[in-house]
Amino acid sequence: MIRIPTTFYLSRLIQLRQFINREKVDGFFITDINNVRYLTGFSGSLGFLLITVEKKFFVTDFRYKEQAEREVKSWDIIIGKGDIIKTIKTLSKKTSIKKLGIESSVTYEFFRRLSNTGLSLKAFKGLIEKMRKIKDVIEINSIREAVRRAESAFLDVKPYIRRGIKERAIALRLEERLKKTGCRHIPFEAIVASGPNSAMPHARPTEKKLKEADLVIIDWGGEADGYFSDMTRTFLITGTNLTKKKEIYQAVLKANRSSISKILPGVRSNDIDSSAREVIKKAGYGEFFGHGTGHGVGIQVHELPRITWNKSNIIKESMVFTIEPGIYIPGLGGVRIEDMVVVKSDGKEVLTALPKKLEIIR
Amino acid sequence: MIRIPTTFYLSRLIQLRQFINREKVDGFFITDINNVRYLTGFSGSLGFLLITVEKKFFVTDFRYKEQAEREVKSWDIIIGKGDIIKTIKTLSKKTSIKKLGIESSVTYEFFRRLSNTGLSLKAFKGLIEKMRKIKDVIEINSIREAVRRAESAFLDVKPYIRRGIKERAIALRLEERLKKTGCRHIPFEAIVASGPNSAMPHARPTEKKLKEADLVIIDWGGEADGYFSDMTRTFLITGTNLTKKKEIYQAVLKANRSSISKILPGVRSNDIDSSAREVIKKAGYGEFFGHGTGHGVGIQVHELPRITWNKSNIIKESMVFTIEPGIYIPGLGGVRIEDMVVVKSDGKEVLTALPKKLEIIR
Repeated sequence: MIRIPTTFYLSRLIQLRQFINREKVDGFFITDINNVRYLTGFSGSLGFLLITVEKKFFVTDFRYKEQAEREVKSWDIIIGKGDIIKTIKTLSKKTSIKKLGIESSVTYEFFRRLSNTGLSLKAFKGLIEKMRKIKDVIEINSIREAVRRAESAFLDVKPYIRRGIKERAIALRLEERLKKTGCRHIPFEAIVASGPNSAMPHARPTEKKLKEADLVIIDWGGEADGYFSDMTRTFLITGTNLTKKKEIYQAVLKANRSSISKILPGVRSNDIDSSAREVIKKAGYGEFFGHGTGHGVGIQVHELPRITWNKSNIIKESMVFTIEPGIYIPGLGGVRIEDMVVVKSDGKEVLTALPKKLEIIR
Repeated sequence: MIRIPTTFYLSRLIQLRQFINREKVDGFFITDINNVRYLTGFSGSLGFLLITVEKKFFVTDFRYKEQAEREVKSWDIIIGKGDIIKTIKTLSKKTSIKKLGIESSVTYEFFRRLSNTGLSLKAFKGLIEKMRKIKDVIEINSIREAVRRAESAFLDVKPYIRRGIKERAIALRLEERLKKTGCRHIPFEAIVASGPNSAMPHARPTEKKLKEADLVIIDWGGEADGYFSDMTRTFLITGTNLTKKKEIYQAVLKANRSSISKILPGVRSNDIDSSAREVIKKAGYGEFFGHGTGHGVGIQVHELPRITWNKSNIIKESMVFTIEPGIYIPGLGGVRIEDMVVVKSDGKEVLTALPKKLEIIR
C-alpha cells in the first residue's frame, strides 16, 4: 500500500535505533499497527516489530505470511503461532534482551502479562507518533493526492446537493465517488448534516431531506497510498431568515483564515488555536465552539499535532494538519470550514483548494 | 443506532451491578466504546461510563452532547472538558469511590495516569465482552437482518462475477449494494481474491482480473442496527486442471459441515474447531489451514467466543459465531466457506442461507 523507497524506511529505523541507544534499553517492541506500517510498509492488520541495534524481527501470523514476504522484505519474518507473549519471550532470549522498551499505548492486560515473563519493561508515550508528525516528501505527495481525490469526488457530487435530497443519499454518493477516484479506504463515514442536525459536530447522515434555509455541513476525506485527507465545507440552502446563519458562516470563515495566517515554523499550536477562538469569541459565539481547531493527518486521520487550547506544541516544517473552526447552535444549525495545511520553511501551503466563500444553493 | 427497549439495557446494567457487589469494588469505569454502546445504546465514538450501585454517569465531550441527550436518556450526562482523568477523579470523589474496577483493555498509559490520582484500581479482563457472548432476541434479530442484507447485496452482484472482471470492481460493487440495502457501516472491506491471491486468507482486492481456472474467495459482511454479519463463499472459474481445486473445495465444505453438525449447548469450542481440522487433516491438507475455525459476531465483527484449537469455551444457547474453515495453497489458491450460526437450546440454526455447493462459473 505504501510504496516508498527503502531509504525512507531505513531513516525511520535509524531514528528508532538512536532512541534505543539513548534510552539504554536492549530493544524496542512496537505493537501499534499504524506504527508498524510506518516503519515497514506492511499494510495488513496484524504485525509486531521487535527491534534491537543489530536485529529487526517482523512478527505476524499465518494469514499474513505471503503479504509480509512481499511487503516487509529486509526484515526477519517470524510467523507466530498462538500467543504473542511467548514469541516475544523467545526472541528476547535469542537476542539477550533484558530491558525492553514498549509503547505506552499497549493494553494494561498486555503490559501485565509481558511483565510476568521476567522482562524489565519501560513504557514510552507516543515515540513513533512523534516521529510521524514530521512528514517526508513522499508522505506529503501521498497526502496531496488524497486531498486531490477527495476534492475530485466532491466536485462530482456537488451538483447533486440541493433541496429535497436526503443527507444519506449525498453521503453514499460521495463515498462511491471517493472509491472510484482510487481511494482504497475511506478515513471515516462522510458526514452530511443539515438544518438542526448540523449543530452536532459529529452527526451521522440521516434520512432527512435538505430543506429551505438549512445549513449543510459536509465533512469527508480521501486516501492515497495509505495516507488520508480530511476536509469540511458548509453550504446554505436558500430561504428566509438567513441573516444569523450568514453571520456565523462569516465568523467561522474569518476564524479559519485567521488561524491559517498564523502558521509558521516556530509558533505554538495553542496560539494557532486561540487565533480562531478569539475571532469566534469576538463575534459573540465563543460558547458554541467546543472542539479544538485542528489535528494532524497522515497514516491516521487524527494524529499529532493537536491544534487546541490545552496542548502546546512547537509547529515545525513538514507538519500536516487541519484547521477547522466551527460554530454549532442547537436548533439553528452549525458551520465548520476545514482545510488541510502543510507547514513550509517560510510559512505554509493550504492543500485544500475548494472554494470557501459562502455559497447559497438555490 | 441500536433502537432496543430500555428493559434490555436495564438487564445489562443489573448484571454489571451484581458484579460490582460481588467483586467488592465501589464502582466500575467502562472505556471500550463497543461496551459503552452495549450498555447504553450510544452510537457515537467517544463516551465513558462510571457506574456505581446507585449512580450511572455517561461522560462524553461537547461534540456528542446532543447525540448523548437523545440516545442515553436515563443516565447522568457529563460533558467533560479536556482531561478524562480529572473528570473521573471528580466523579469518584463525589460518589465516594476508593476502589475502582476498570477494563484491562485500557492502555497502559491510561492505567498509569489513573493510578497516580490515588484511586485503587482493579483491572478485569473481558467482563462486558463475556456478557456480550450471549445475545438476546433483539440482538439476534438485528444479526439476522445483517445477514439478510449481506446476502441480498451479494445476490445482486453475483451475475457480475465472471472471467475478465477485476477483483476490485467486484468488491466495490458489493460494497455499494451493501450500503443500498441499508447497511450504515460495513464491518470490513470486502475481500475478493482470485487465483494465487486467494491463497492469502486476508488478501485485499487488486486490479487483477478473474481468469480461467481461478478459485475466487469472496468474504464480506453486512450490518443492521449496529450489529454485523460475516460470510464467505468460494467459486471456481471454468478452465482446465481443476481436479485439485475441486478436491480442496470438497474438503473445506465437508469440514464446514462437520463443525456445524457438532454445535450444541454444552460442547466445547475447541471440539467444534477440531472437527473441521480433522476433516482437513485427513484429506491431506492439515498444514494449509492455519487459522481458527470461527469467531463470535455482534457489535464487533470479531468478538467472543473464539472457535479455535488453543482456547476452550463451553458453547451456550444464544451465542452467535462463524464457522469458516479454509485451505490455502501458495501458488494454487485457496478455499474458505463461512457461515453464521446461532446456538439454539436443541442444536443450532445456520443463519447464512446462500448455497455452498461448488459452483463452477462459465
